[in-house]
Amino acid sequence: MNTFGEIYRLTSFGESHGPAIGGVIDGIEPGLEIDLDAVQAQLWRRRPGQSAITTQRREDDRLEVLSGLFEGRTTGTPIGFIVRNADQRSHDYDNMRDALRPSHADYAYMAKYGLRDHRGGGRSSARETISRVVAGAFAMQALSRIGVSVIAYTSQVGSIALGKPYDQVDLSLTDTNAVRCPDADTASRMIALIEQVKAEGDTIGGVITCVIKGVPPGLGSPVFGKLHAMLASAMMSINAAKGFDYGMGFDGAGSRGSEMADLFVPAADGAAPHMASNHSGGIQGGISNGEDIYMRVAFKPVATLLRDVDTIDSAGRPVTLRAKGRHDPCVLPRAVPIVEAMAAITIYDAYLKQKIYSRI
Amino acid sequence: MNTFGEIYRLTSFGESHGPAIGGVIDGIEPGLEIDLDAVQAQLWRRRPGQSAITTQRREDDRLEVLSGLFEGRTTGTPIGFIVRNADQRSHDYDNMRDALRPSHADYAYMAKYGLRDHRGGGRSSARETISRVVAGAFAMQALSRIGVSVIAYTSQVGSIALGKPYDQVDLSLTDTNAVRCPDADTASRMIALIEQVKAEGDTIGGVITCVIKGVPPGLGSPVFGKLHAMLASAMMSINAAKGFDYGMGFDGAGSRGSEMADLFVPAADGAAPHMASNHSGGIQGGISNGEDIYMRVAFKPVATLLRDVDTIDSAGRPVTLRAKGRHDPCVLPRAVPIVEAMAAITIYDAYLKQKIYSRI
Amino acid sequence: MNTFGEIYRLTSFGESHGPAIGGVIDGIEPGLEIDLDAVQAQLWRRRPGQSAITTQRREDDRLEVLSGLFEGRTTGTPIGFIVRNADQRSHDYDNMRDALRPSHADYAYMAKYGLRDHRGGGRSSARETISRVVAGAFAMQALSRIGVSVIAYTSQVGSIALGKPYDQVDLSLTDTNAVRCPDADTASRMIALIEQVKAEGDTIGGVITCVIKGVPPGLGSPVFGKLHAMLASAMMSINAAKGFDYGMGFDGAGSRGSEMADLFVPAADGAAPHMASNHSGGIQGGISNGEDIYMRVAFKPVATLLRDVDTIDSAGRPVTLRAKGRHDPCVLPRAVPIVEAMAAITIYDAYLKQKIYSRI
Amino acid sequence: MNTFGEIYRLTSFGESHGPAIGGVIDGIEPGLEIDLDAVQAQLWRRRPGQSAITTQRREDDRLEVLSGLFEGRTTGTPIGFIVRNADQRSHDYDNMRDALRPSHADYAYMAKYGLRDHRGGGRSSARETISRVVAGAFAMQALSRIGVSVIAYTSQVGSIALGKPYDQVDLSLTDTNAVRCPDADTASRMIALIEQVKAEGDTIGGVITCVIKGVPPGLGSPVFGKLHAMLASAMMSINAAKGFDYGMGFDGAGSRGSEMADLFVPAADGAAPHMASNHSGGIQGGISNGEDIYMRVAFKPVATLLRDVDTIDSAGRPVTLRAKGRHDPCVLPRAVPIVEAMAAITIYDAYLKQKIYSRI
Repeated sequence: MNTFGEIYRLTSFGESHGPAIGGVIDGIEPGLEIDLDAVQAQLWRRRPGQSAITTQRREDDRLEVLSGLFEGRTTGTPIGFIVRNADQRSHDYDNMRDALRPSHADYAYMAKYGLRDHRGGGRSSARETISRVVAGAFAMQALSRIGVSVIAYTSQVGSIALGKPYDQVDLSLTDTNAVRCPDADTASRMIALIEQVKAEGDTIGGVITCVIKGVPPGLGSPVFGKLHAMLASAMMSINAAKGFDYGMGFDGAGSRGSEMADLFVPAADGAAPHMASNHSGGIQGGISNGEDIYMRVAFKPVATLLRDVDTIDSAGRPVTLRAKGRHDPCVLPRAVPIVEAMAAITIYDAYLKQKIYSRI
Repeated sequence: MNTFGEIYRLTSFGESHGPAIGGVIDGIEPGLEIDLDAVQAQLWRRRPGQSAITTQRREDDRLEVLSGLFEGRTTGTPIGFIVRNADQRSHDYDNMRDALRPSHADYAYMAKYGLRDHRGGGRSSARETISRVVAGAFAMQALSRIGVSVIAYTSQVGSIALGKPYDQVDLSLTDTNAVRCPDADTASRMIALIEQVKAEGDTIGGVITCVIKGVPPGLGSPVFGKLHAMLASAMMSINAAKGFDYGMGFDGAGSRGSEMADLFVPAADGAAPHMASNHSGGIQGGISNGEDIYMRVAFKPVATLLRDVDTIDSAGRPVTLRAKGRHDPCVLPRAVPIVEAMAAITIYDAYLKQKIYSRI
Repeated sequence: MNTFGEIYRLTSFGESHGPAIGGVIDGIEPGLEIDLDAVQAQLWRRRPGQSAITTQRREDDRLEVLSGLFEGRTTGTPIGFIVRNADQRSHDYDNMRDALRPSHADYAYMAKYGLRDHRGGGRSSARETISRVVAGAFAMQALSRIGVSVIAYTSQVGSIALGKPYDQVDLSLTDTNAVRCPDADTASRMIALIEQVKAEGDTIGGVITCVIKGVPPGLGSPVFGKLHAMLASAMMSINAAKGFDYGMGFDGAGSRGSEMADLFVPAADGAAPHMASNHSGGIQGGISNGEDIYMRVAFKPVATLLRDVDTIDSAGRPVTLRAKGRHDPCVLPRAVPIVEAMAAITIYDAYLKQKIYSRI
Repeated sequence: MNTFGEIYRLTSFGESHGPAIGGVIDGIEPGLEIDLDAVQAQLWRRRPGQSAITTQRREDDRLEVLSGLFEGRTTGTPIGFIVRNADQRSHDYDNMRDALRPSHADYAYMAKYGLRDHRGGGRSSARETISRVVAGAFAMQALSRIGVSVIAYTSQVGSIALGKPYDQVDLSLTDTNAVRCPDADTASRMIALIEQVKAEGDTIGGVITCVIKGVPPGLGSPVFGKLHAMLASAMMSINAAKGFDYGMGFDGAGSRGSEMADLFVPAADGAAPHMASNHSGGIQGGISNGEDIYMRVAFKPVATLLRDVDTIDSAGRPVTLRAKGRHDPCVLPRAVPIVEAMAAITIYDAYLKQKIYSRI
């Protein structure tokens, strides 16, 4: 239940207020040269405190790899890793020991486990995503060898949406601003909105779009292992995710088959088929077709507000909760590398599976 | 890859033009009385030819259970079952042997397997969902003992949407019309649209909403096994599904945390906590909280059109395809029982998992 | 729990007194030509009634494949299959409805499930192994393409043991006698013993040896997925198996490291290393090394005796059981193809896994 | 491939010459009080350097738990842990960089992965079993709450065998001598043999017997998940294991059914059935029956000799290997806690699975 993937597998552990977050990556190909600085760089893209619009919690988030590498290469054995937790202000949470925070996991956890670590959300803390980013960064390095790239960006914050499809923006600009939207003008409006929401002690939701290029045709399988079902599971497992679609998605539900057909363009003998459009989003019948895969993930606004909240304790009595934790007014900017990581893990897993049946 | 679920597991097999579709259900609790007529009734809700707005392909779809029941009860051993294929007009597909149909799985299959059964879509045929409906019907009977009910309905066809949330319609009316929309007026407009689309040889997409009531709190797990991630994987594995959301979903991405908070209502000592709203959709932190779970699934329009289509063959040469198969102008009405089945399988699986840790 | 294998997976179903035994084979490579007559021939090697020393129960055991093949080749989609049960004399078991047979699964089943199908052992019937033989026969055909062969034989019945290692007998003679021992003289003594035991209404145990030749080096993995651990699990899952060893096995436990070392023979540059002995049994550190894999499986005598047995019923009261079923006095001859099947499934599964990491 | 168990799961990582060995324990019940000193004590039972007959390598083997515990109890979330490697004399292995040691995993590793970490056996090092001992110690504490105990002991070293069954020795004496044999006289002869073998630079094999008492009836499942198949897989996954049997085992293969029957003793109404003998070894039809489970595991002599060995390098050229590592002349004494750990993990996993279906 704390393992993701079938061939390329991440097993994750750790709470925000324990000694460390970490995981085990199993199933990576042997002999891959790994650039650990690039892995660390991805971790820093999700690090708290990176800009004025993220939480001010400070964490060094330094990766320590404990196994699986020898002389700079993967050996094919599992990669154990940890990231120490540093800036723990557990006492900030003392008043939450018995309170059930609205729209948090507190009540559901009690129902499931009969007890909970109330500090910082315990296992439901966003710090858990550190393990995903590490495993995703390894997967990206493996994928880059076969020409696959993964890029995500913030496409909506509150009601401010980037009104263009992914192929009409310059994705290389994504990291040029704090909100990670590749369109400068939209980005400034998003940032202004987040600052305003933060000033009001409130939070705001949004949408991240993710694009995967260079995926070889043939990944995924026809029934339960559809590539987009795996991607949906990956994305919906991220904290605060509430929706997923790919290709034409929800917008295409109102369309006709004749509008949505991706017609083939006749090709010279032997050339790979090409399509005149990509409403399908790079996956047909659950299997990649070589076109770009693009998808959207909807995130709810963070439930932790920096204002007093009336709620109940575990005995059902009314209590007022004065939140002192440091939280993100909007998770989107820091969720971008997490979305990329889960996409990379999923595609690399599907790629390894396909190696069983084909010499891709 | 043809198995769904971890504790309650369906392993599915069969192509539309082979002798039979079937599966193996593993992990069901022993000692459950099973009403096989009720299982058959669910199969007939997805059967082709059931109304003027579905495909006219005729199938008896008679369930044959081969194991796992003794004197009307489950024994705890696997339930093998088959449904024979009857109305096979394989020659309808002769002209598709080499053609790659646009927006179908044909090209992706060839890329994956190097060969394919071109008749009726092979494994990507919607007949595969028979196995899901059977496993779902068994799960529903197990769930009904603990007070869980699952109901889905068509909430949008093309641009015609039912403009009310699920708790403002009478869900018991869902099966009173051919399109399975519980609002009579909206239903007639949907049916008229489907008939028009059909007359034009075209197809149309839409949205199905699914509601699960009575789920005990505590199902699902905090990280990769989030209950909504499992539901997303289940729903997105259905043919033609393009999007999934639950609770506030995509619509809530534009909202603020203060608007979306589901506040607890103080309760007498010992009573289960109650919430004043349910924007969360019955799941918090990936774990059920006892409130209704509701979700939406977007379906694309079926790619098979009843009109001539210009495409290519596997050598890349242009061909014109004159479709003769009998297909649904809109998959929504027949997909309703499939959505219910996948929801039931997922919830029952999560329920069995939770029995490991709690005496629910 | 009714699925074996990770990549090449058999999911099995069926009781001896239900309509059919069957299964689903998932994960086979696409494009393999399959000789169904050869699969049927393996089934007939395990069929009851094949000789005077097996049970006289008569079964046609005719295989019906329901999916996954197209024009004589695997498509890569799951192979569903059934074998109808024919010679059911369920009334033979009426007196066993409440009795708990000694050394059978009856009591353990009741403890596990709270109810049981008392007819013919239900799910613990040896008929369940039909599914294994089918999946094993498919695996053998896939393995034969890469030069792997699997052969098992009866090496001990009661105290009559074949006193030679596998490489000093002519394995091609295995099927020339009813007990499947490749040494004619030993075989006749074994047969005489089984006939005597049968005449006394008793049963007898023994040992089967299995040899796998041509396994490429590199199969298996270093820790929990050791190739011999997978083989042990496979063999011990066969009804009546009580012990497993490979290579030097139990006999080598009394030896010294200096005696057991398999020394390398220096080879010309580029040639695959060769070893002067094979005490290791073809597996080192859990991974195949290219030498022959050989192993032994110990079988207990069948618990069902053809004589009156004093036992208790489910309320603990004494009852006398007059067995009327038709059973094998010695399972060894019919277990030979089952051992081969489980070996083939395991090796093919390990081979497919290794294809992920290496172009074998 | 580095994960063991289905519900209670250990995912293990680490090489002997990397920074740390560790793992993730998933699926433990929430709310269990854990005595970490008892876990540490088990680690020290497998620690090198504990007596004159084990390797003199020195390791502190101090357990560091990183997650999953809160205020002394399990939370139900995964338990990450590490044990730092200390006494690494990697240079001892410099002469092995290219050499292929006879009867080691070196050649098989190269065939599998194309490269290897030659220091100390890399992933095939016995240090990997640290993770097993930790997970086993947690499982034992969970099992002790329901009355299950696990105890193993050395029953054979070379040709010196303890000539009595487990129920005729005082198992509480096992740890009173260095070889962990509960019979003082046999133990001294075993120790003398190991000292002699060590003095000759040689190694010696043996057998460990393991007894599990108090297992509730109903654990395990009838077909592939037979409890003894799981135990076989667990035991055979331990380094140097070559054979496994349980109950009557290989010795019973020569017996008759009438001799081996475990007859029920009539009992007062409602009392759990009792058997007059236990040739079955506590498992019938793959399911525990409430009697003691007992099994044997055969270990080969360690392949690493403290003498010069003629072998080849990876190019096939002859080399002489002068071993400088510090190794055990006999693995049995240190393998006793490992056998116990794997037994405990397997039984606890089976117990959790059975909780799905029964209120045990």
